[in-house]
Amino acid sequence: ADSSLTRRCHHCSTAMLDVSFLPFCIFLGTLGFLCVAMVGTWCQHWRGGFSLDGSSQTFNWHPVLMVTGLVVLYGAAALVYRIPNTWSSPKLPWKVLHGSLALGAFILTVLGLAAVFHFHNSQGTPNMYSLHSWMGLGTVLLFSCQWAAGFGAFLLPWGPAWLRALYKPIHVFFGSTILMLSVASCVSGINEKLFFSLKNGTMEYKLLPAEAVFANTLGLLILVFGVLVVAALARPSWKHPDSNSPDSRQVQDEL
Amino acid sequence: ADSSLTRRCHHCSTAMLDVSFLPFCIFLGTLGFLCVAMVGTWCQHWRGGFSLDGSSQTFNWHPVLMVTGLVVLYGAAALVYRIPNTWSSPKLPWKVLHGSLALGAFILTVLGLAAVFHFHNSQGTPNMYSLHSWMGLGTVLLFSCQWAAGFGAFLLPWGPAWLRALYKPIHVFFGSTILMLSVASCVSGINEKLFFSLKNGTMEYKLLPAEAVFANTLGLLILVFGVLVVAALARPSWKHPDSNSPDSRQVQDEL
Repeated sequence: ADSSLTRRCHHCSTAMLDVSFLPFCIFLGTLGFLCVAMVGTWCQHWRGGFSLDGSSQTFNWHPVLMVTGLVVLYGAAALVYRIPNTWSSPKLPWKVLHGSLALGAFILTVLGLAAVFHFHNSQGTPNMYSLHSWMGLGTVLLFSCQWAAGFGAFLLPWGPAWLRALYKPIHVFFGSTILMLSVASCVSGINEKLFFSLKNGTMEYKLLPAEAVFANTLGLLILVFGVLVVAALARPSWKHPDSNSPDSRQVQDEL
Repeated sequence: ADSSLTRRCHHCSTAMLDVSFLPFCIFLGTLGFLCVAMVGTWCQHWRGGFSLDGSSQTFNWHPVLMVTGLVVLYGAAALVYRIPNTWSSPKLPWKVLHGSLALGAFILTVLGLAAVFHFHNSQGTPNMYSLHSWMGLGTVLLFSCQWAAGFGAFLLPWGPAWLRALYKPIHVFFGSTILMLSVASCVSGINEKLFFSLKNGTMEYKLLPAEAVFANTLGLLILVFGVLVVAALARPSWKHPDSNSPDSRQVQDEL
């Protein structure tokens, strides 16, 4: 056995596993759209639709806004720097896009929290007792710190180079971590909601009615979406070629 | 602004973020031990302890075995190749250790599944209806494929170099993915169990009794454990220096 054969094997195997970014994004976008459409369909078709009156129709905004904001739009924001165009063109417009998508995701998330708090308060149900709520609120708090620190360090022009260099790997790490926590929160929330909603007669969750199959499938698709985004973020060949260098070119360009 | 200053900043910031592997492992081991101790305490102190008679005390083996096997022991198995000693010494003993820890994790996991199926069957409760069960069984099935394929490709001596090179990045990817899915399964399971168990009078989950605080905290610690293991696996400076080359040295050593 000679090592050049081995190396050739390795190269051809790497090439076989190679997927290009654009088709992957189209697939991921379709999957994200499907998750949003399914959570909307679940709430509209089986859970009575949407309102703002504090009833369970107000609660229904919660899953829709969380899946749309904290999973799908968040995932899109996270992947901005994997678009190959971002590697050569000026960084500032891409930073603004990344920050804007993340802000959009954050606003939907806060509205999603408002929906469940409004529902609980109208019904006299305590807030923040379940593990789902602890994990979910922790995820949103991490997300708010992540957005504010990212804005302060990378978008404000006076962020010093040493601070950007220090904070960048932390920002990248929490970017993936927050998405994993979001997905885990969604899955535990869907599970919990199905136990709440399906408990009578022929509609019991354990009898697996159509709604349960539909919402369980939604949960699995959200998991697949999250895993694929985290995998895409971790994939070395899709990273910015300059990704190990400090994020300070913007400053230098401006000086 | 000159780029040497920037580079210096980057180096010192990288050094500031640097953590050595051994203290991290001691911390992680302590955290894993705490998770196992807490899930055992929860089941022993609040849920009536353990038995094999098909009652809810049989169910209690399920969370203990899953947290111990599919999270803590699995995490230990995943981190074997991050021990710096594995980089220079012969690979086979480390492979055997990795495979054995994973096999131990898998056996505990299967016993954990047997506990919940035995409990359901004894009580006349259907199996496999909740999103938790779909996700959890999916995770275990992925884990069984992962173990069998890893054993076939890397431990059997006739695994060809091209196959090892092709499969290695897939094995690494699913290694982290399965752990994330395990953690999400545990969290949704703890949440579900608390809704089942705490529903009467002053013990309601929403009144947040001591058991709920304890088990919610356990859920958060499991999340932290999972995130730290996945982060350690992804950390470039802790990877095997040779980690981008094909896993074929074993074959060459043996030829």
